[in-house]
Amino acid sequence: MNRRHFLGALALSSLARAAAPRVNAARLREHLEGLSVYGRPAGGSFADGVSRVAYSDADVAGRAYVMRLMEAAGLKPRIDAAGNISAHRAGSAPDLPPVLFGSHIDSVPGGGNFDGDLGSLAAIEVVQTLNEAGITTRRPLEVVVWCNEEGVAYNNGLYGSRAAAGHLEEGELDLVWNGVKKADAIRKVGGNPERIAEARRARGSFHCYLELHIEQGGTLDRDGIPIGVVEGIVAIDRYDVEIRGFANHAGTTPMPERRDALVAASYLTVAVNEIVRREPGRQVGTVGQIEVRPNAPNVVPGLVQLTVELRDLSAAKIVGLAAQIRARAAEIARQTATEIAMRQIAHHDPALATPEVQASIEAACARLGLRSRRMPSGAGHDAQMMAVLGPMGMIFVPSVRGISHAPQESSRWEDCGRGADVLLETVLAQAS
Amino acid sequence: MNRRHFLGALALSSLARAAAPRVNAARLREHLEGLSVYGRPAGGSFADGVSRVAYSDADVAGRAYVMRLMEAAGLKPRIDAAGNISAHRAGSAPDLPPVLFGSHIDSVPGGGNFDGDLGSLAAIEVVQTLNEAGITTRRPLEVVVWCNEEGVAYNNGLYGSRAAAGHLEEGELDLVWNGVKKADAIRKVGGNPERIAEARRARGSFHCYLELHIEQGGTLDRDGIPIGVVEGIVAIDRYDVEIRGFANHAGTTPMPERRDALVAASYLTVAVNEIVRREPGRQVGTVGQIEVRPNAPNVVPGLVQLTVELRDLSAAKIVGLAAQIRARAAEIARQTATEIAMRQIAHHDPALATPEVQASIEAACARLGLRSRRMPSGAGHDAQMMAVLGPMGMIFVPSVRGISHAPQESSRWEDCGRGADVLLETVLAQAS
Repeated sequence: MNRRHFLGALALSSLARAAAPRVNAARLREHLEGLSVYGRPAGGSFADGVSRVAYSDADVAGRAYVMRLMEAAGLKPRIDAAGNISAHRAGSAPDLPPVLFGSHIDSVPGGGNFDGDLGSLAAIEVVQTLNEAGITTRRPLEVVVWCNEEGVAYNNGLYGSRAAAGHLEEGELDLVWNGVKKADAIRKVGGNPERIAEARRARGSFHCYLELHIEQGGTLDRDGIPIGVVEGIVAIDRYDVEIRGFANHAGTTPMPERRDALVAASYLTVAVNEIVRREPGRQVGTVGQIEVRPNAPNVVPGLVQLTVELRDLSAAKIVGLAAQIRARAAEIARQTATEIAMRQIAHHDPALATPEVQASIEAACARLGLRSRRMPSGAGHDAQMMAVLGPMGMIFVPSVRGISHAPQESSRWEDCGRGADVLLETVLAQAS
Repeated sequence: MNRRHFLGALALSSLARAAAPRVNAARLREHLEGLSVYGRPAGGSFADGVSRVAYSDADVAGRAYVMRLMEAAGLKPRIDAAGNISAHRAGSAPDLPPVLFGSHIDSVPGGGNFDGDLGSLAAIEVVQTLNEAGITTRRPLEVVVWCNEEGVAYNNGLYGSRAAAGHLEEGELDLVWNGVKKADAIRKVGGNPERIAEARRARGSFHCYLELHIEQGGTLDRDGIPIGVVEGIVAIDRYDVEIRGFANHAGTTPMPERRDALVAASYLTVAVNEIVRREPGRQVGTVGQIEVRPNAPNVVPGLVQLTVELRDLSAAKIVGLAAQIRARAAEIARQTATEIAMRQIAHHDPALATPEVQASIEAACARLGLRSRRMPSGAGHDAQMMAVLGPMGMIFVPSVRGISHAPQESSRWEDCGRGADVLLETVLAQAS
């Protein structure tokens, strides 16, 4: 089908629309399986998930694989100064801002093979499908794979999309993680920290941003709904907590004389859980990371560092939760003779999806005969940074049993294909 | 002074006794400072403590230093199959069992420069002092430096003295820690795991075992008493606890659906602290080590492993505490939808010091004009394993502010010298 026929078809009846192009779901699966080997546990299979932390050797290898797929789809990938990979596909009206779409391919340690990967490889699949159908859209298209979405490395996520949105923090490139300066990590993936400002995109530089992603929660799967239309992305605040006690011999230090930093950390972890749970609503709070020094069975712990993360669609609500946690931390410090310092290290505003883009995704679902549901995103996504610059929309597909950030993370292959078709339909609508 | 004169002097008045040999406290200090460089933090000083975990490169280097000191004191060090270093000094009655004395030089990570080091280097100093005084004792002497007292490596302490006492556990040499099999670690320090049984010592193979050590608690320092005469060493039980929850995305997993292993671990750590504190007595309980998987700020923790250590002079009391902790763990598992498995991995019986040896140490203090106090040891020591084989006694010197297993661990140099003199006097009395 050539472009003229296709544009004509869009205006016709549902019978004619059934002839619109569809992604090759089998190829998409093949590509997801191909990417999964980069960061796979030794001796494992696809079901054993992936550890592809940003800037790791696995990440570098996975990025090279993705660039090969782009080239196979006729794209010319480039790496911007921040390390983001993107590729342009010409439109018939070359001066119009492109429709931008994509996701990320970095993972958490012990993560799954769908978070980010699906949206990234589906974006390439959309282009390949258009090529095979001989379709040139009116607006140009741009596929993007953002760098370091998870933020495991350097403890601050959405790095690549923040660079694009001009939301990098002061001194961020000087951070050191696992003994490596962030500027050097960026160089490792082909970025250029000296020219980081060039990664910034202007407001209005794209027509809209679209991202296909797995839900990572269990509601679509539980209710048998194939597509979620994201209304907005929750606010996320992240805190580093440092608890200073005093390391001492676990046999000779009487209980009343101890300043046990891990006992204090345990009271605080319980407090985070109880404070977040006792209010009605969908807010969540997590102590996900903890480091203990000296961490030996026969030594009273002297120093603990832990993270507290709070999320809700209301930024004010999580500010209130943090205040309660801070007050409880002060009590715990007094009771345990420790010092507790709680420092905010990241804040992400809630980001609303553009109503017109939501409607466009819903219309695409309707054309494809797929049920959809509007819903918030409890997870942060690069899309929230793109919302700073222009219209944004996200498409969710079900996560089996709501499992994500774990090796068991899974989405059914037919749901992956449906999500990619919704992305394709929405891209076509937005680019016409 | 030759031997005949010395033995005569022992029978005479306090005036004559003042001429008995005294250790060279300045040299002992010099040797402690010399040993402290092996495992010292980069760029640090003596005050920054030491990380000389058993079998580390720092441990190997420290052991070589100690063997050089032995040679300088006229001793011929040998390494037994378990990796213990020992050296024999002839007596005038060579067929009598020797007086055995020494300690260890391995440390916890971020430990101090006195725990073990003092007793090891004071033992060598006693021999050098006797050499310089031209004294040959009736019984032979044997200096020993035990291997892996702390048990940070392979999570089970008193390894070398347990090997000597025939208390190794089944499969212990097959354990893996930091990717290294214990048998290979033993080879690294010059031991021979195939012949480990040869490290075993027979009951009655020594006349008595003496160990000088820092108190590691604060009572001698607080009360200004220079010497502690140890009555016994507390029982120690150590448990590994594994908590299985389910790792999941910290943004999309609603609080009621979480199976957070770190929340469960925190309730358990609080429980250990509260259960141990609520009974009267001197018992202690510690959660000192914790590992969390996947340990990322945006992932609900799925797996936690932690250690629980309990100590008291009464073995029955800590068994009762463990039963209470186990019962509470079962409740926590139910409340947090996790699985908690608590497995005992080490048990050390309480060990009483031999009354005659305690009296001998007290008599030595009296001859030296030093106040002393009988006291239990809250810390485990190699001496408790030697108590399995024969008479045992321990000499404590004050720990400044009771700090130990920390870089700030310190004993005054004059107290170190006094302790070494008490060891010398007791060795002379026991060997005559």
